[in-house]
Amino acid sequence: MDDRIREHARTLVEWSARIEAGDDVVLAVDEGAHDLAVAVAEQLGERGANLLSTYQSDELTRAYLDSHDGEFEESPAYELALYERADSVLFLKGSRNTAETADVDGDTRRAYSTARQAIREARLDTDWVSTQHPTRAMAQQAGMAYADYRDFVYDATLRDWEALAEEQARLKEILDDGDKVHLVTDGTDLTLFIGDRIAVNSAASVAYDSHNLPSGEVFTAPYDTAGVVTFDVPMTIQGRRVKNVELTFKDGVVVDWSAEQGESVITEVIETDGGSRQLGELGIGMNRGVDRITDNILFDEKMGGTVHLALGRAYDACLPEGQSGTDSAVHEDLITTMGDGSRLEVDGEVVQRDGVFRWEDGFEA
Amino acid sequence: MDDRIREHARTLVEWSARIEAGDDVVLAVDEGAHDLAVAVAEQLGERGANLLSTYQSDELTRAYLDSHDGEFEESPAYELALYERADSVLFLKGSRNTAETADVDGDTRRAYSTARQAIREARLDTDWVSTQHPTRAMAQQAGMAYADYRDFVYDATLRDWEALAEEQARLKEILDDGDKVHLVTDGTDLTLFIGDRIAVNSAASVAYDSHNLPSGEVFTAPYDTAGVVTFDVPMTIQGRRVKNVELTFKDGVVVDWSAEQGESVITEVIETDGGSRQLGELGIGMNRGVDRITDNILFDEKMGGTVHLALGRAYDACLPEGQSGTDSAVHEDLITTMGDGSRLEVDGEVVQRDGVFRWEDGFEA
Repeated sequence: MDDRIREHARTLVEWSARIEAGDDVVLAVDEGAHDLAVAVAEQLGERGANLLSTYQSDELTRAYLDSHDGEFEESPAYELALYERADSVLFLKGSRNTAETADVDGDTRRAYSTARQAIREARLDTDWVSTQHPTRAMAQQAGMAYADYRDFVYDATLRDWEALAEEQARLKEILDDGDKVHLVTDGTDLTLFIGDRIAVNSAASVAYDSHNLPSGEVFTAPYDTAGVVTFDVPMTIQGRRVKNVELTFKDGVVVDWSAEQGESVITEVIETDGGSRQLGELGIGMNRGVDRITDNILFDEKMGGTVHLALGRAYDACLPEGQSGTDSAVHEDLITTMGDGSRLEVDGEVVQRDGVFRWEDGFEA
Repeated sequence: MDDRIREHARTLVEWSARIEAGDDVVLAVDEGAHDLAVAVAEQLGERGANLLSTYQSDELTRAYLDSHDGEFEESPAYELALYERADSVLFLKGSRNTAETADVDGDTRRAYSTARQAIREARLDTDWVSTQHPTRAMAQQAGMAYADYRDFVYDATLRDWEALAEEQARLKEILDDGDKVHLVTDGTDLTLFIGDRIAVNSAASVAYDSHNLPSGEVFTAPYDTAGVVTFDVPMTIQGRRVKNVELTFKDGVVVDWSAEQGESVITEVIETDGGSRQLGELGIGMNRGVDRITDNILFDEKMGGTVHLALGRAYDACLPEGQSGTDSAVHEDLITTMGDGSRLEVDGEVVQRDGVFRWEDGFEA
């Protein structure tokens, strides 16, 4: 076994999920994540945690959904009982074919998802963590050789998370104290307000309200957005390619939009409901181990020197008690590169210039 | 997909497990049983049953057990809650390496098994069915080419179960009405009593109290066994080869034993407890699709023209209300071939001679 798989498992169990003796752990194993699952099982045994593994297979899901009449039972009691009693759910992502469910009927997919809402919520109520085992299919999606992709995944995942958490704490403090954010890039001049909102120091650990490994971002819930933003990072949204999306905001709402590619998807997203016309998240990528875009949101949005904004639902963790943020059925992240000439300002002070934070080497004041 | 996989899945879901709309089904997927799992998911969707898949991996189990200190929690509540609410558990066997857990410490294995007794019982309380997807590892264990092994598995599994159930009903009637069984083979002259005991028509369906696919046997719970029996079918018991076991019974109890190979395993089994010195099962194989021994008890004991006897625990289904049969921590099947010169008699009447039942072509009265 690649030593990095074992290290990945240790990081997941120890740093991210904070597993302790007697914890009831569900290991949700994707088709291609077997090797990581073995390494995680070893870690769980070592800690005296309990282990139940589920099999997450897109091929099974497709076969089940394609043959089902679409009248799904609401969150079946046996599955709900499992997750309601679980302490942690560890999602080991590892697709063998990212297009496997491409032909599943959209209505069926939505009906299935809607019927399972209580199960999903029960899972989110646990100390859940989602992580990625490198598979050939993911390498292909990234346009990379498998060996290179493995290097990429482990460079992004096996970080000094404690050090990054400390660095991110600086940015969290600035955002928590700040009111007005000004974002400037080639094609972007955007103003957002974050007063009273709480920034999350997303350091790849449930101890930091962070449920992704890798993580490495600080995010908050903006409001009253105004101006123009261009997202130059290409993405796949609902199986369709999206490129150079431009959004224009007025009084916190999208009033105009276009895209060089995939504009129809963007239109669908924006027109979902009231909340999908507003931003739910302003996220600032701080993971310098993510050094390229690989068409996988788990990595892309964490990339150091990028900023992402999400249309739709805000995270509760960003909202003070009693305050409500953007509510929507969607949460769609879009990413922009903070390249040469870019600026991120909070209350008039430059926090990042040309993609370099003011506490980093090479920052030009 | 091999059409036979789809047919296997249909047989499992329809004939064996009798799955209906709304049933809460746990699909327990072995590492090598993915293809069958996809076909079963299709069948479950078609019937509107609910589906949760667990991942049964010997590699995970080994990693977990090897790193655990051996102090296991008794049947963790989250897993117990799942099985207590499930209607059916479908075990899709499909090992990728039958020796995977060979080096796991015996004490750890037993402690794990003991701690999980309530979970095991909850599973046995469902309409559970265990079946076998053909893998290369199982072909290897059988000493067969993979293509031949697949043919073997499907010949044994894709039977006309309704017809076999009818044929088996004849034997069940004979055994239910009978009192004294006399078994004669080369090396065997054994008398067993079955008065008051209930024979199970094991026709690969929960509707017949049968939880194996394939099945194809009629079994009951004998007592007061006397005489000698030789088991000429080689087996693997607890990872060790066993060959030509000879047992001598007096007043229902083993008084002498030997084996050409693996005698120490047989000794361990017999000396487990009081019940392990007695027989818990007399089973008569009636599946003519099983045409050879493949070192897999799921198939071997069902082979038409064989009889098996189990040391240890009797099945409740064979005991009239209020009567108790052999009780033991073990249930170890041993098999003898009903070859030329063999006889199976019930109350002095020959039911099978030279391996041919009296209702079959070629029977010599």
